[in-house]
Amino acid sequence: MDRSVLSVTTKPLLRALGGEAIDPPPVWLMRQAGRFLPEYRKLRAQIGTFLELCYSPALAAEVTLQPVRRFGFDAAILFSDILVVPDAMGQKVWFEEKVGPQLEPLARRHGLADLTVDRVRAHLAPVYDAASRVKAALDERTALIGFAGAPWTVAAYMIEGHGSRDFAAAKHWALAEPESFATLIDLLVEATAIHLSAQIEAGAEAVQIFDSWAGVLSAQEFDRWSIAPTVKLVRQLKAAHPEVKVIGFPRGCGQRAAEYAAATGVDAISIDYATPAEWARGALKCAVQGNLDPVVLLAGGPMMAREVRRLRKVFAGAPYVFNLGHGVLPTTPPEHVAELVRLVRE
Amino acid sequence: MDRSVLSVTTKPLLRALGGEAIDPPPVWLMRQAGRFLPEYRKLRAQIGTFLELCYSPALAAEVTLQPVRRFGFDAAILFSDILVVPDAMGQKVWFEEKVGPQLEPLARRHGLADLTVDRVRAHLAPVYDAASRVKAALDERTALIGFAGAPWTVAAYMIEGHGSRDFAAAKHWALAEPESFATLIDLLVEATAIHLSAQIEAGAEAVQIFDSWAGVLSAQEFDRWSIAPTVKLVRQLKAAHPEVKVIGFPRGCGQRAAEYAAATGVDAISIDYATPAEWARGALKCAVQGNLDPVVLLAGGPMMAREVRRLRKVFAGAPYVFNLGHGVLPTTPPEHVAELVRLVRE
Repeated sequence: MDRSVLSVTTKPLLRALGGEAIDPPPVWLMRQAGRFLPEYRKLRAQIGTFLELCYSPALAAEVTLQPVRRFGFDAAILFSDILVVPDAMGQKVWFEEKVGPQLEPLARRHGLADLTVDRVRAHLAPVYDAASRVKAALDERTALIGFAGAPWTVAAYMIEGHGSRDFAAAKHWALAEPESFATLIDLLVEATAIHLSAQIEAGAEAVQIFDSWAGVLSAQEFDRWSIAPTVKLVRQLKAAHPEVKVIGFPRGCGQRAAEYAAATGVDAISIDYATPAEWARGALKCAVQGNLDPVVLLAGGPMMAREVRRLRKVFAGAPYVFNLGHGVLPTTPPEHVAELVRLVRE
Repeated sequence: MDRSVLSVTTKPLLRALGGEAIDPPPVWLMRQAGRFLPEYRKLRAQIGTFLELCYSPALAAEVTLQPVRRFGFDAAILFSDILVVPDAMGQKVWFEEKVGPQLEPLARRHGLADLTVDRVRAHLAPVYDAASRVKAALDERTALIGFAGAPWTVAAYMIEGHGSRDFAAAKHWALAEPESFATLIDLLVEATAIHLSAQIEAGAEAVQIFDSWAGVLSAQEFDRWSIAPTVKLVRQLKAAHPEVKVIGFPRGCGQRAAEYAAATGVDAISIDYATPAEWARGALKCAVQGNLDPVVLLAGGPMMAREVRRLRKVFAGAPYVFNLGHGVLPTTPPEHVAELVRLVRE
């Protein structure tokens, strides 16, 4: 028997994403590597910028592995950022401490001419190097997850230049000049397919597509700018890598997640904390990941235990990956995370 | 025949909120008074702080009437802010230009002792004075809408001290000390009932309850902290003022709006721009208000015309109030609003 096939199929995360009900469910957490961990803060203090950390293969690999070592998660998710893609396409991107990501906002029309997908793979080689190092360090039951931002979410940052509550500038462009916006989205589909494929070739067995700002789109825009580009992206990935598992995370889209799942053919939907788990269990015809509220993890205690048991009960007998409904909050006590993993596996 | 009854029932907004399909539908816009209007900016420049403006009856009335005069809306909505309630309860509240509302964050436990509902009516007397002045100035087909924040949304600001993406501090309090948080919510139900009743007595014929941050609540929290307090609030309002129409705006709650509508007994649901209008038409057993994307109004042009026609078609034959899915953006050209009203009435 082919050992690589055996090792793939015995990883609980990949079995759950493949449609198997696993008891106890596999568990990992969005933003499981990062500021809430003292070992991360120590390492982060020794290096200049956030992007330097992302582009240092040994350090990015180490930061990726920290939470896996400490908590025994079923998956490592590569430590990186969704904005490495515009950085690789030629846009100026930097991270300001306590402010967040900053980009030189893309100018309508003229801005597109400066972008290219040609250097994505070369520019992001250190990211793929980090992925290979992580993969080599993982044991045979722990999966490696790669990720990227969805085209809409990345485009929104590229146009706005920073985070925003409503990304009105990006939506304005999409409404006023849908043709040039579609060109940008198409470029991003291509760049993202390259970036995810390279992560898969470096060892990622699953990838998550973060459409973190899907929720600011109107119903029609959601079809056009979230679902449609993701359909293309998933099709390209599956054509090139039929074995890879794809997790979609259309955050804030409520029950439209069902249309997203059906149209895109993702293997799993990661549901945010506002989505009722019972609804997801019934309505989503794929694996489900999520959706503990990160504030419940922050608070810990008996209420967290109740919530974990409730989620396990809702998804009993279904393909399910335990996770949060959004990323770990930076002030989360690491002991709460250890207790969470214990509760998920009890 | 009683003339006051006649005048109430002939206002298109009140008829629509009462369950009648009106063609063309009545129209008003959230944040229709404010920075996008040059006459507002001129008046605003002559007065010190935003709260001073809210508490100057003649000026607040004037600002309320500006868009009604300019665009002929079917309703005036009192110019005020949801944070006048914590201000009246004794919390320090101020507005920083280009930053937004700031509050001295409520301290857990001890903070509650400093709050009282006893001075709400006296402290906010200038607001009710403004409402009376507006009512006296409106013609017989234009309705006056009062408003308040929902208890959850106001509590979230009171605890966080400012706007936030996830209101994690407020959610943390609610999870860690649900009893004291429930005390705060109960106080807010009482204060909000007083505040809305006083607006109704001053002439408001409908009130809108803004649960602007309902979307950051998990499914269970939504039931407990958004729906349940609103049930109490609506019951109190309807008991004291059986004729008043109540519009609920649980923003960001997706299709849980159907449960909210059924449980609270509001006369209408204002749907945000992410909620599919077709779904709302079928699923909400009450009048519907909304849900043009404010960015569509910002962009204007043929696409805005298409969207207006689409919404009118979706809600043809149903009780419907034309509105946005969120407030008017400050950079919106006033001519686009004039064109919008023309399109709604064509």
